[in-house]
Amino acid sequence: MSQPKYDQFKKQMSKVADINFSAAVLSWDQQTYMPKNGAEFRGQQIATLQTMGHEQFVLDDLGILIQEASKEPLNEDQKTNIKLIQKDYDRKKKYPHEFVEELANVTASGFSAWHEARSKNEFKIFQPILEKIVELKRKEAKILGYVDHPYNALMEDFEPGLTVAKVDEVFSDVKKELFPFLKEILAKPKSRTDFISRHYPKAQQWSFSEKMVRKMGYNFEGGRADFAPHPFCTTFAPGDVRITIRASEDYYNEMFFAAIHEAGHGLYEQGLPMREHYGLPMGSALSLAFHESQSRFWENNVARSRAYWVGNFPELKKEFPDSLKDVTAEEFYKGVNLVEPSFIRVEADELTYHAHVYIRYLIEKALIEGSLEVRDVPKFWNDRYEEYLGIRPSSDAEGCLQDVHWSYGSFGYFPTYSLGSFYSAQIEYAMRKAIPTFDREVESGNLGILLQWLRENIHVHGRKYNSEELLTRISGSGLKFSYFMNYARKKYGEIYGI
Amino acid sequence: MSQPKYDQFKKQMSKVADINFSAAVLSWDQQTYMPKNGAEFRGQQIATLQTMGHEQFVLDDLGILIQEASKEPLNEDQKTNIKLIQKDYDRKKKYPHEFVEELANVTASGFSAWHEARSKNEFKIFQPILEKIVELKRKEAKILGYVDHPYNALMEDFEPGLTVAKVDEVFSDVKKELFPFLKEILAKPKSRTDFISRHYPKAQQWSFSEKMVRKMGYNFEGGRADFAPHPFCTTFAPGDVRITIRASEDYYNEMFFAAIHEAGHGLYEQGLPMREHYGLPMGSALSLAFHESQSRFWENNVARSRAYWVGNFPELKKEFPDSLKDVTAEEFYKGVNLVEPSFIRVEADELTYHAHVYIRYLIEKALIEGSLEVRDVPKFWNDRYEEYLGIRPSSDAEGCLQDVHWSYGSFGYFPTYSLGSFYSAQIEYAMRKAIPTFDREVESGNLGILLQWLRENIHVHGRKYNSEELLTRISGSGLKFSYFMNYARKKYGEIYGI
Repeated sequence: MSQPKYDQFKKQMSKVADINFSAAVLSWDQQTYMPKNGAEFRGQQIATLQTMGHEQFVLDDLGILIQEASKEPLNEDQKTNIKLIQKDYDRKKKYPHEFVEELANVTASGFSAWHEARSKNEFKIFQPILEKIVELKRKEAKILGYVDHPYNALMEDFEPGLTVAKVDEVFSDVKKELFPFLKEILAKPKSRTDFISRHYPKAQQWSFSEKMVRKMGYNFEGGRADFAPHPFCTTFAPGDVRITIRASEDYYNEMFFAAIHEAGHGLYEQGLPMREHYGLPMGSALSLAFHESQSRFWENNVARSRAYWVGNFPELKKEFPDSLKDVTAEEFYKGVNLVEPSFIRVEADELTYHAHVYIRYLIEKALIEGSLEVRDVPKFWNDRYEEYLGIRPSSDAEGCLQDVHWSYGSFGYFPTYSLGSFYSAQIEYAMRKAIPTFDREVESGNLGILLQWLRENIHVHGRKYNSEELLTRISGSGLKFSYFMNYARKKYGEIYGI
Repeated sequence: MSQPKYDQFKKQMSKVADINFSAAVLSWDQQTYMPKNGAEFRGQQIATLQTMGHEQFVLDDLGILIQEASKEPLNEDQKTNIKLIQKDYDRKKKYPHEFVEELANVTASGFSAWHEARSKNEFKIFQPILEKIVELKRKEAKILGYVDHPYNALMEDFEPGLTVAKVDEVFSDVKKELFPFLKEILAKPKSRTDFISRHYPKAQQWSFSEKMVRKMGYNFEGGRADFAPHPFCTTFAPGDVRITIRASEDYYNEMFFAAIHEAGHGLYEQGLPMREHYGLPMGSALSLAFHESQSRFWENNVARSRAYWVGNFPELKKEFPDSLKDVTAEEFYKGVNLVEPSFIRVEADELTYHAHVYIRYLIEKALIEGSLEVRDVPKFWNDRYEEYLGIRPSSDAEGCLQDVHWSYGSFGYFPTYSLGSFYSAQIEYAMRKAIPTFDREVESGNLGILLQWLRENIHVHGRKYNSEELLTRISGSGLKFSYFMNYARKKYGEIYGI
């Protein structure tokens, strides 16, 4: 097929990708190896690359190329690329230059203000800048346009097509079904967890974690794992996907489950058809919510399952003979699945987690629709924690200042954390139908069959389908909370004897 | 002072620097941590950044800004920045777009052709592409313009103002004085070197090397050292200068002297006033030749001196009690200063080294002026090795295929390696006048006083003076080979009893 315009289009998108992936390399280095004094100029360097990536994408010439390429004979994948880039392009073109600059300026000082506020435990330090950010995000929703609710415009970046109506519906189920179930669990005696906070030397933690990450199928010839203050996953190219890890020597969960989680993200990236579709929708992850479904599937549905620890606990015990000498596989399994209300989202168990997300969602929605003032966030936050989890933060540092997201203008992201979990339950359901020996495979470490299924049913499609479409292809319906609730009842009902 | 145009000029140069430093981060990662499969796209990503860095520099608007800024009230440093950027700008503007593209295309395939030729030991594989490269470099000299000799145009990138006349003059001294002295040395009994190739575990090698690098004053809060296949130094920002190292467990010299050498480059970068003059001449190294003077000063004039090993050998012996149990400081000093003809430039001692460089210089000059054909390079190379070093390479792999430089179109670089050594002898001479206790300071590890002198007399000036001017400020005259020859006679005359 002769498609000179599509080829030109692809070349320009490849340039945009080169720039954006370069910015990712600089960010990764910033968080892994950069020496202390490198900080002064690194933010500026990343911003320069990001701005150029944006400028190279919103070129008028690219708009014309997209139009022209769309008239050439294209195969299905190419049509998908053109269709979705047209959509992204139209969206990005809506932003007036002054708005982009203003938002960049405000959020550039957001991180340090937030950081100072958190370390001094004083919301007032962050309040003025958060007010500006909220004002700009409300403006952004107007610029982008929306149906029904301005927050819909903002969620679009993280889960295309997601609406407040849908999220409200899902969380109404969460409140109706999950929260009462939580109460039942909390009335039961706690599992033993003393061994989680014993001594686990860093090197042995990584030795075991790396083995488990390899077992999942994470390819170290096309990826790495490095230490960083916060775990994350980032992609530089097909064949170069990096995860980061951290370790606490007195808290077993910190490295292991984060490593599995990030490797789950990494497997998704390694499975995308990125080589043929470099910088294009077919080579990109469907959405942040779907990304989260992959990480949480591996972290919770696999690595927090009984079968997993029946299979792997003997190996773990070999690595830590002292710290685990009086612990059984069953005790370990229950220990890493303790359900308990806590203040910090990133340390929450897989059930109370959704209360954390719900509270943030309520606040974001209210701020964007204008029914809540920034100054009232701390009280609103604390009241909701008391209402849903029965605990009240004693400070803003363990309350509304704990997350970095708002400081860089990220509104609409939080709901995807819960959606990811809910998707992963639905994915597990579908996978079990295709692989009836699921538990046996997990127990015997035959994880390749699970990865194969994810590759064929999810990864290979890039952004071809949206989440509702892909879930329907996989499981027969769009998102339904009942899959997660069934998963939770079965697993935790059994653990807690309910 | 009101200088709105200078400020705009500075801002644009800062953007260019952001892009170029970003490319450096990607190259560094490519050689240190990048997983195997990352290679496929990394070259393209770096090329995209380099092209954009070039495009952002040759903008017509920047040309106008330089002109306008030059009319504003500027201080001396600012005037220097404007003057030198005008020069760089005029030079870069001479390149037609098609030439840049053609050279990029040819050299893009140069590395793999060279690599294949070297590993198969077959010059013919590299020959056709080298012919194209030489043709383009001859064209480049014409594009840039020159007085007297086309090779002058190419050396300008590596040592501004350097001419064939000057290099010929210097190497005529090398042939007249150094080569006969070499013959005298080679007639003497060899020093003992058996211990150099004993077992030195990597971790202890780095433990000692790092201590020594810190002692020089290399700041690890503004830099790092990482393992890579080839040692190099690269800069990402003020406060972020990285060196790389490698280790052979059976050859002591490989890590240590390269680490000191690269840290010497690193100290120069860390000492430049780069913070105030980010991306500008006042914040940049004077030339590659001067850069080499810094690395060689620390490697040879300091770390290969007797005083250094009298001071540090006891510490080294503690690190390797077995491998060095029957070795004295004096034997070690003589061992790491063995003079012996060899085929590989990067493994040569500090005297025969200049024969390696001279031969490459003769070949480059002849290729560029058209008096030598590419197909005749292997024979020319081998004949000269026989003539000057009395040895004849048995293969092109240990002959004219050993260096990577030509594969990426680098012509005019080699002479700077020798000039760097000659400068460093002249620098040592000047430093000894200012610091009569030089040997005692080196022996007692008080290297801060040496660094301080380099900072004040060299580093702080950026590109303010050219090499001849700076050498004259320091030592009272421009480059004179006699400084190096005196250094060599004193040191090696004493070692070999001549």
